Amino acid sequence: MSNFDVLRNSVGDLWEKYIRHEFVIKMKEGTLPLDSFKYYMVQDSKYVNVMLKSLLNASSKAPLDKITNILNSIFNTRDKGLEVEKEVFRELNIDEAIINEIGYNLVNYAYTRHLYYYSSVGWEEFLAAWTPCMVGYRFIGEFVKGSPNKVYNLWASFYGSDEYGKRVEVILDSLESIKINEELKNIFKNSVNFEIFFWESALRKDPTIFK
Amino acid sequence: MSNFDVLRNSVGDLWEKYIRHEFVIKMKEGTLPLDSFKYYMVQDSKYVNVMLKSLLNASSKAPLDKITNILNSIFNTRDKGLEVEKEVFRELNIDEAIINEIGYNLVNYAYTRHLYYYSSVGWEEFLAAWTPCMVGYRFIGEFVKGSPNKVYNLWASFYGSDEYGKRVEVILDSLESIKINEELKNIFKNSVNFEIFFWESALRKDPTIFK
Repeated sequence: MSNFDVLRNSVGDLWEKYIRHEFVIKMKEGTLPLDSFKYYMVQDSKYVNVMLKSLLNASSKAPLDKITNILNSIFNTRDKGLEVEKEVFRELNIDEAIINEIGYNLVNYAYTRHLYYYSSVGWEEFLAAWTPCMVGYRFIGEFVKGSPNKVYNLWASFYGSDEYGKRVEVILDSLESIKINEELKNIFKNSVNFEIFFWESALRKDPTIFK
Repeated sequence: MSNFDVLRNSVGDLWEKYIRHEFVIKMKEGTLPLDSFKYYMVQDSKYVNVMLKSLLNASSKAPLDKITNILNSIFNTRDKGLEVEKEVFRELNIDEAIINEIGYNLVNYAYTRHLYYYSSVGWEEFLAAWTPCMVGYRFIGEFVKGSPNKVYNLWASFYGSDEYGKRVEVILDSLESIKINEELKNIFKNSVNFEIFFWESALRKDPTIFK
């Protein structure tokens, strides 16, 4: 069994709750209200900034061959990701200034600080915290692709792309080289819970008071 | 105006909402249910561990004279704090093993990671994040002292003590030496909000799923 499967199995049905959340299903069916998605996109954009900073903070603690592949793969495909993001932003009438103006909701604030915390602790800990987001979005992208809603289909065109798939492969390759223990399972589980709470906070449109 | 007053004024009525929260008033009146307090004490104990680690993480970034006073004052009075905590724990039938077994609630997880995050960013940022907890508990301790409830009175006997007051003085002295800007006000405000949410999470007894 791969290390990813070990981690995924260790959280029981939480994984399915994450990648097949009501939010995701409604994206696929095209029934998700656009204002929920807009709320989500702003929070997600703030998330990605801290996530990338956390990756960089963790990078010096990683084995050089693995981190070279990961950074190479991420920065090689970042243009495509940003291009899709820009198109989605245009559809939603949001931009960098609006995103900076809006604060984090509690879940997003907690999740991003969780990532940063483990990026300071060590590479393996960060990897366990980071995997649910990176790998989960691959499954979600493939699932949502083909949505009758133009914006959700556009959004999924990146996470369901071969380029994104390559990112996931190098991350899984690095994950395969470490030894999974109880602490890493806990960190992974926290992140899966955060992903579920992230969808829920977008459906509820939680207050965004944290700057 | 002192820097502390500048920060406190910048959050408007949030400061009073924190130090005179329903939770605090019920401690003073002795009407707070003991199981709410027990829930709170477990979360607070987990909080203090990460808070102290964050202080140590930030310490190398601080001016040496200020941090020497702060660490000296905290570690000099830590025995008294631990002694009171031990007595409170005995009254509540909790111990280290129970505290380790129980997870963080979302608010506590977010708050502790917020502290750790800013302890990595810089001393001034950490100080702004840390001040609401350290200084607020001075006001709360003095207010709750004399509660008809033996346990709450015991708890307040530390935060309302001269030893604790000395901790607060050296922290305010360090705070006075920095230049307050908008970012520090934001960090301070986040922490005040976390303190309010911390009381509320204890009244609600939020799920403690984060390890």
